Amino acid sequence: MGAQARPVVVVSNRGPLSFRRDADGSLVARRGGGGGLVSGLAPLVSGTDTIWIASALSDDDRAAAGAGPARVVQAEGFRVALVAHEPDVLRMAYDVIGNAVLWFVHHGLFELARRPRYDRAFRTAWAAFDRYNQSFADAVVELAPHGAVVLVQDYHLSLCAPKVRDRRPDLSLVHFAHTPFAGPELLGLLPDPYRHELLRGLAANDACGFHTDRWRRRFTDSCRSYGVAEPRTFVASLGPDPADLAAVAGSEASRQWRHRFGERFAGQQLIVRVDRIELSKNILRGFWAYEELLERWPEFQGRVCFCASIYPSREGLAEYLAYRQEVEHLVARINGRFGTAGWTPVVIETSDDFARSVALLGCYDVLLVNPVSDGMNLVAKEGPLVNDRDGVVVLSTETGAWEELGGVAYGVHPLDVSATAEVLAEALRLEPAARRDRAARLREIAGSRGPADWLADQLAAASR
Amino acid sequence: MGAQARPVVVVSNRGPLSFRRDADGSLVARRGGGGGLVSGLAPLVSGTDTIWIASALSDDDRAAAGAGPARVVQAEGFRVALVAHEPDVLRMAYDVIGNAVLWFVHHGLFELARRPRYDRAFRTAWAAFDRYNQSFADAVVELAPHGAVVLVQDYHLSLCAPKVRDRRPDLSLVHFAHTPFAGPELLGLLPDPYRHELLRGLAANDACGFHTDRWRRRFTDSCRSYGVAEPRTFVASLGPDPADLAAVAGSEASRQWRHRFGERFAGQQLIVRVDRIELSKNILRGFWAYEELLERWPEFQGRVCFCASIYPSREGLAEYLAYRQEVEHLVARINGRFGTAGWTPVVIETSDDFARSVALLGCYDVLLVNPVSDGMNLVAKEGPLVNDRDGVVVLSTETGAWEELGGVAYGVHPLDVSATAEVLAEALRLEPAARRDRAARLREIAGSRGPADWLADQLAAASR
Repeated sequence: MGAQARPVVVVSNRGPLSFRRDADGSLVARRGGGGGLVSGLAPLVSGTDTIWIASALSDDDRAAAGAGPARVVQAEGFRVALVAHEPDVLRMAYDVIGNAVLWFVHHGLFELARRPRYDRAFRTAWAAFDRYNQSFADAVVELAPHGAVVLVQDYHLSLCAPKVRDRRPDLSLVHFAHTPFAGPELLGLLPDPYRHELLRGLAANDACGFHTDRWRRRFTDSCRSYGVAEPRTFVASLGPDPADLAAVAGSEASRQWRHRFGERFAGQQLIVRVDRIELSKNILRGFWAYEELLERWPEFQGRVCFCASIYPSREGLAEYLAYRQEVEHLVARINGRFGTAGWTPVVIETSDDFARSVALLGCYDVLLVNPVSDGMNLVAKEGPLVNDRDGVVVLSTETGAWEELGGVAYGVHPLDVSATAEVLAEALRLEPAARRDRAARLREIAGSRGPADWLADQLAAASR
Repeated sequence: MGAQARPVVVVSNRGPLSFRRDADGSLVARRGGGGGLVSGLAPLVSGTDTIWIASALSDDDRAAAGAGPARVVQAEGFRVALVAHEPDVLRMAYDVIGNAVLWFVHHGLFELARRPRYDRAFRTAWAAFDRYNQSFADAVVELAPHGAVVLVQDYHLSLCAPKVRDRRPDLSLVHFAHTPFAGPELLGLLPDPYRHELLRGLAANDACGFHTDRWRRRFTDSCRSYGVAEPRTFVASLGPDPADLAAVAGSEASRQWRHRFGERFAGQQLIVRVDRIELSKNILRGFWAYEELLERWPEFQGRVCFCASIYPSREGLAEYLAYRQEVEHLVARINGRFGTAGWTPVVIETSDDFARSVALLGCYDVLLVNPVSDGMNLVAKEGPLVNDRDGVVVLSTETGAWEELGGVAYGVHPLDVSATAEVLAEALRLEPAARRDRAARLREIAGSRGPADWLADQLAAASR
């Protein structure tokens, strides 16, 4: 990024640093993990002049941000400005509008007979969402160097651009959507004026980017259907950094996990999944498919194990808690039905531990990635990059990753439980030579574009 | 239809007659009620040479149908042929695929984290659905007069046309969809090969008709998106027959109900809805909106009543039972919260009684029709035709009826509870002169097209 002629500003809800009180009470910055966005961008931004504007997410973050307008602090190689929202504003903007409305709209997750319910609580939350975007916009207006490229990340910041535009015509604004984008049918579930504000908010950017052409077309279809002039659009897929992943895989923690998994699953074929427990990830249907596999082809019983690294997320939302419980009950039922003294059909790991997940990805025979809908899905690319057992991938056709891995990964329609069972069986039975060939091609595609390519595409889109 | 040059065959799941055993054990035909399709078509077909092919829906129907190929029986002015499916085939085709899959797809009702689940039970049901369509196709091939126009009605018969086409090239096949049609995003929820079979099945007709241009375009978009050649398409909206309605409204039963309602709701403004208890009808949000109305504008308390004629349907599906219970609990809660000794905020009538529904439609001040999605919605047109209190209509923008009544009816986005509350308040407060004007315009539009126009459009589409 040093060669970039124009200064760069990154804007996202979560930033690369979080603050904590030390033993003596002073605030100390730490590098945080969290999400493909931050982990992909952080190494590229570290040590540069790039300003990263993010939300203060905790009380300690808010203390570090201080009162008054956001200001840049330098720590751990980053130049970060934390935007301190009122806690209620942050909660309503992020949890209610971001995660419980827009996420559901873009992924098509609503149960329409009951949800969503655009009532007075929603209106209050939408006003908070607007305020949240306004606070980010104010920070951009205040802090962005003259002529900067501003990279606005993801759906939480959909309303940001129009609040910056007229006040800082020198800036180039680029929005990147990490989710799928709702086409006219799904976006119709958001009523006006909100729908119009959302599209108009995105259209006020100089360019809008998406992981795949499919989401890009859904966005432009929605703009056309609802009478909003389209901005320039572009496609820039994100992939993991192979060197970063190799470093994690080679770490002591990961190698210890790998050793344990090797002992635990010795002599069995291993199906793996790694996911947040998230409605869009389709965890229930993955287990239903596995159950059908064991039913239809009993020869797999005792000879295969499904190890799922699935860790809780968004448990502030009732739907997610209920979903987690259903997942746990289903696992218990399958183990109760098929398990024997010497064989547990499903093993779940429920803490979020990246080193362990990478170790698990190292040793799958089949990686199951079957989301109902997913902007990209990095696991589908991380797997092939760290796996050394010639493992293959069963991949939902409704993921961004499918656009790149399709045909080399086995495709499944995510709602088709029987087809998923059949494809799992086919993948488990694949001959070694064919397996090796597929694994090599998966690895090649998965490693073909890293975060630096993705970032370069965004910067290029700004200057076009 | 007498002037029609070509013979006509109507094909639908439900026909105009049902059979029952008399006291002496002999089978007697009766005219059945049931749905806008049958009630709209039956008077036009009665007394003509038209052959109506329908499912045998009960044991007595099956007995009347007899063994072997379907044959035409004459009764009550109809020439009817009943197709006798195996009871399990009928149940799987109609309840599972028709009502629990295709209905959900076209109306967008799935809760995707859990449903649908295309498993082995689904595959068995789809095979039954195919067999059900095959039986209808066999009856058409067997019974249709040379050169006939065959009017295939609704989504249950989506696979019929390709099974007739090559065997009877002399026939013209016209399919009419009474539901909304799923565009590419919603139809994507049905995996291949089923999606392709569905589109190919419809495309094998000479023409496909829809209630509105919106559903027509969704169909052609889906054909294009999924690589199926579009057939000729047309739009033909259905409206009630004003004379039929007037006859019901003038019946003794209806007049008695009207008198009772007059006494019961004297001195109050009356909000009315008339619906099957059906996930797409959005009954919960209607009551939530009413609750918000009473909260935000307490001056309505004691001065308005919401009388809902809502009667159970499809209670063989767990979702419908659960939904009914939620509706009943919500009504109880609102009445518990706001009701007084002299005033019940919500009154529900839960038996399916058309004379009573018509009486209720006669006396609303505001008719609420707020489906999440609806192919047409005849209640929105029946109301204005029988109402004599200058009542106005609050109408979901996601109904076919909105395309015709939009702007004269008040529009609401069906998911927007707060907007619905506001529009209800506005409608209740409307001045008499403006109210009279709106009611007159609603009546004019609602009566502008009857079943005969709709039928004529289908026949015209066949000969183009």
